[in-house]
Amino acid sequence: MSGLTSSEFVRHAAAALERVRNTRPRVHCLMNTVVQKLVADGLSAIDAIPSMTSSPEEVEAFVEKADALSVNLGTLDSQRRTSITLGVSASARLGRPWVLDPAHCDYSASRATFAQQLLREGTPILRANEAEFWLLQVSDDVVGVRTGKHDVVRKGAQSITIENGHPLTAKVTGTGCLSGAVIAAFLALGEDPHLSAASALLAFGVASELAADHARGPGSFEPALLDALHAISPDDILKRARISHDQG
Amino acid sequence: MSGLTSSEFVRHAAAALERVRNTRPRVHCLMNTVVQKLVADGLSAIDAIPSMTSSPEEVEAFVEKADALSVNLGTLDSQRRTSITLGVSASARLGRPWVLDPAHCDYSASRATFAQQLLREGTPILRANEAEFWLLQVSDDVVGVRTGKHDVVRKGAQSITIENGHPLTAKVTGTGCLSGAVIAAFLALGEDPHLSAASALLAFGVASELAADHARGPGSFEPALLDALHAISPDDILKRARISHDQG
Amino acid sequence: MSGLTSSEFVRHAAAALERVRNTRPRVHCLMNTVVQKLVADGLSAIDAIPSMTSSPEEVEAFVEKADALSVNLGTLDSQRRTSITLGVSASARLGRPWVLDPAHCDYSASRATFAQQLLREGTPILRANEAEFWLLQVSDDVVGVRTGKHDVVRKGAQSITIENGHPLTAKVTGTGCLSGAVIAAFLALGEDPHLSAASALLAFGVASELAADHARGPGSFEPALLDALHAISPDDILKRARISHDQG
Repeated sequence: MSGLTSSEFVRHAAAALERVRNTRPRVHCLMNTVVQKLVADGLSAIDAIPSMTSSPEEVEAFVEKADALSVNLGTLDSQRRTSITLGVSASARLGRPWVLDPAHCDYSASRATFAQQLLREGTPILRANEAEFWLLQVSDDVVGVRTGKHDVVRKGAQSITIENGHPLTAKVTGTGCLSGAVIAAFLALGEDPHLSAASALLAFGVASELAADHARGPGSFEPALLDALHAISPDDILKRARISHDQG
Repeated sequence: MSGLTSSEFVRHAAAALERVRNTRPRVHCLMNTVVQKLVADGLSAIDAIPSMTSSPEEVEAFVEKADALSVNLGTLDSQRRTSITLGVSASARLGRPWVLDPAHCDYSASRATFAQQLLREGTPILRANEAEFWLLQVSDDVVGVRTGKHDVVRKGAQSITIENGHPLTAKVTGTGCLSGAVIAAFLALGEDPHLSAASALLAFGVASELAADHARGPGSFEPALLDALHAISPDDILKRARISHDQG
Repeated sequence: MSGLTSSEFVRHAAAALERVRNTRPRVHCLMNTVVQKLVADGLSAIDAIPSMTSSPEEVEAFVEKADALSVNLGTLDSQRRTSITLGVSASARLGRPWVLDPAHCDYSASRATFAQQLLREGTPILRANEAEFWLLQVSDDVVGVRTGKHDVVRKGAQSITIENGHPLTAKVTGTGCLSGAVIAAFLALGEDPHLSAASALLAFGVASELAADHARGPGSFEPALLDALHAISPDDILKRARISHDQG
């Protein structure tokens, strides 16, 4: 964890949330069509500024104006493939941080090949599940976010485990995609990527817990999550963080 | 109604809901872009597993992994047309059940022709309104679901009428598409298609009534419907079912 | 304001809302993929009838069946560009009113050029922000809606300023697009376009205020806004309108 104690990390995360709210980073999202609205609303809720076009003619202009890029391989067709390639190249050329979510690349061979090709283009934060990590054979310099019951953020031998979160999150389509975009917003601060990714997930996990207090099920959980992302304060993070770490 | 009495059918429907929750069927959806998120969330709410890609290169791999297919002809362009053709062929080849919603095929001649072509490809459950049924001249071996004030599920001379439901459902875009996808989830159980379609609509109608208790209008009805689909129990169906049937 | 006093305008707006509910205008929407669901639900909430296809093969058939057209240039790709061109031409040929939202045309040169080309095709209501108006150099016969803290509806030297509204509106992606579609629904009444656009925005602004009473943040504001658009009465407009006007 870059030499920080757990409580130093939690204080870092709380302060990073404040910096996101103050700097209002622009995050361009190349998201599947299913989740675009939720991701845009979630970014707005933390005071980031989303843009969502995946038109090949426009993507470079929007990535240039953005501070970070969030890429998701869901609902992948040839046009989206072109746009993602253009967007990731532009992002690499401009030195912008980016997040890659290979979204079920284990279901479709063409999607897995494409994910591997993108990983050669630049070094993203990779947000994936166990099966996807295994398939993609990620190298040690990539910060990997393995989501599941707990979120684990790993770089080489170092890992941070976030125990905050709520099971209803998994019942709402797109919350994983949104957490990737929130990571991109924190990366835009230009701080250590490992800490930024873990800070973003800690904020997201705490917001999920706050949301659950106002939810009757997965339907009401979604607006409650957006309300909580809008309301969450550094203090909520300091009070509720449950993390552990392993220095490798 | 395949020889069942009304109360035997209601018990069948209640048990079918339980089996859906336990078996977690995978439903691939070829849906218009407007409603993808609602349909995915609604399937997750009943513990089915949705997938939504309509990319021509990926659709067959996803249909192969799915237990049933739900097709909606809204926002139909040439790429979606290709994907639907590929998806329906794969589904027919694999013997998977599927639902077809011709979505306003009476507005657009090219859409009606396409619907007729799909009906020759295999025998779906057809979810349509009066005008669409008339236009498509469906043969007697197709299970037809006519939605409206009451839902009528017909096969040949036999019909089941579901009186449960709530008028706010019609004010929320995509609830009809979602009911089609819920039918697909019940079809995945591999039971009599006529009973499965009627069971799905009964569960959906009862959930709509439960949702209305927590709604102030169409906006709050949508999350309440998802909450209700998540919460609805076999017991709710047994207590609230209002159906009638006609043996032809 | 076409010679009306402020209170005459407010009474006009209240009556126009009633006429929209009674006539149920059909509004075809060529919207970016992010906001389609919200826009469809918002139109249904005021009892208008939305359609959303942007397939080039279908758009003309749908525009023909519609009473007004609402066009938004977000997520613009070549197919959407074709559809919008076809839709706007059909609309001009049929003499249907239409609304144009150039959506960040200041971000992308190709989008700005396309917006200018559409403005030569016919005379829409133009819904834009300050930067977009400046860029597009709109002629005096276009009714311009400048959204921001207050909404200003201008034609030539005459302007109406709507002070109703709520800051949470800006935190929900697609509320601006929806307000454009609501303008289209009011335009479908066939009355003075300047008054219709201002009436629509007044109704929308008052609904936003009603919604805020039931919102905990931007997430719960969205369903509350749809509930309010469904519930808002002419009386709410008469009681809550805060407008000013300038006769030039």
